[in-house]
Amino acid sequence: MAISGGAQFERIQKIASDLFATRGYRAVGVAEIGEAVGLGRGALYYHISSKEDLLFSIVVRYIEDLVTSGQDSIDSEPDPSKRIYLLSRKLMSTIFANLSEVTVCFREAECLTGKRYKVVSDLHQAYQDIWTYTFREGEKKGIFRPLPAVAIKGILGMYFYSFLWLKPIGKSSSREIADIFAEMALSAAKYSNGR
Amino acid sequence: MAISGGAQFERIQKIASDLFATRGYRAVGVAEIGEAVGLGRGALYYHISSKEDLLFSIVVRYIEDLVTSGQDSIDSEPDPSKRIYLLSRKLMSTIFANLSEVTVCFREAECLTGKRYKVVSDLHQAYQDIWTYTFREGEKKGIFRPLPAVAIKGILGMYFYSFLWLKPIGKSSSREIADIFAEMALSAAKYSNGR
Repeated sequence: MAISGGAQFERIQKIASDLFATRGYRAVGVAEIGEAVGLGRGALYYHISSKEDLLFSIVVRYIEDLVTSGQDSIDSEPDPSKRIYLLSRKLMSTIFANLSEVTVCFREAECLTGKRYKVVSDLHQAYQDIWTYTFREGEKKGIFRPLPAVAIKGILGMYFYSFLWLKPIGKSSSREIADIFAEMALSAAKYSNGR
Repeated sequence: MAISGGAQFERIQKIASDLFATRGYRAVGVAEIGEAVGLGRGALYYHISSKEDLLFSIVVRYIEDLVTSGQDSIDSEPDPSKRIYLLSRKLMSTIFANLSEVTVCFREAECLTGKRYKVVSDLHQAYQDIWTYTFREGEKKGIFRPLPAVAIKGILGMYFYSFLWLKPIGKSSSREIADIFAEMALSAAKYSNGR
């Protein structure tokens, strides 16, 4: 085999992500993945231990990356407003560069079971906590108004939903969208408009 | 049969929505729907012509309702800010009252094909156009700033993503969340925060 084990596994992850993102994890069988990758059942199982394990490896990779970089931004950027821009740009650039993987990460994670589900749920929560921590910090510093938890859910939803429409638009760059969204998050956090 | 044809069809729609929302349209077979509903294949096909037709009937119903009520709000409420509150409340109350159906409506609509897909795509677009029209109207009246198309996509994403987390939170009422979201949409539309 000309392709190394690591590179082959990356290839399997990529192709499986496309299949899971397009047709849903539950509707895609291991045989179909093997066919798309060009490997028989035995060769495929040399690289993956199960379909769920493959899903887990895809989901964990991207959410872990977002959590790590989010924690870094807490350490490196003390200004909550500027940190919202950092978080926004990293999230949008991750979604832009890995649309299938992130779609799987956000939409198919619920297909995981047991300990794998727990690990991924905790990572998703850790990621949301980074945003919440940043809004609460701005609140303590008196630069943000107290945002209800539901508002923070709404802000994250604005980002997370974007994997569903990003492709069809495609005219704006990741950075442009990130900055528009960050500005919206900050206008929600900074001002209180009565009706 | 004690249940009328219409009521039975509503029951089938409800049970199928729950299955499609939980496990995905593609992963649920007609046999499984029949079993959940308590009808054999023949009896089920008396009420539905195909699985895709059943999906279509669920999706169309809720998005059509949103479009109709959105158009009514354009006719009845000339103030764009107040109309955002009306649109917001109707959308959140629809999501709250029909979580499975709306999940299917927004997440599984892409499984439709041909003419059915076109009808639903057009309805989704018509619904987004109602929001866009309202923001643009406020812009013309000088009360909103010019919002980039991507910002409107973001605002709608905030709403549409909520079907994924609404159940776990469950403490806020539909009206409370709707008003928090409307306020956020208006703060994005009304103010421009530089960094």
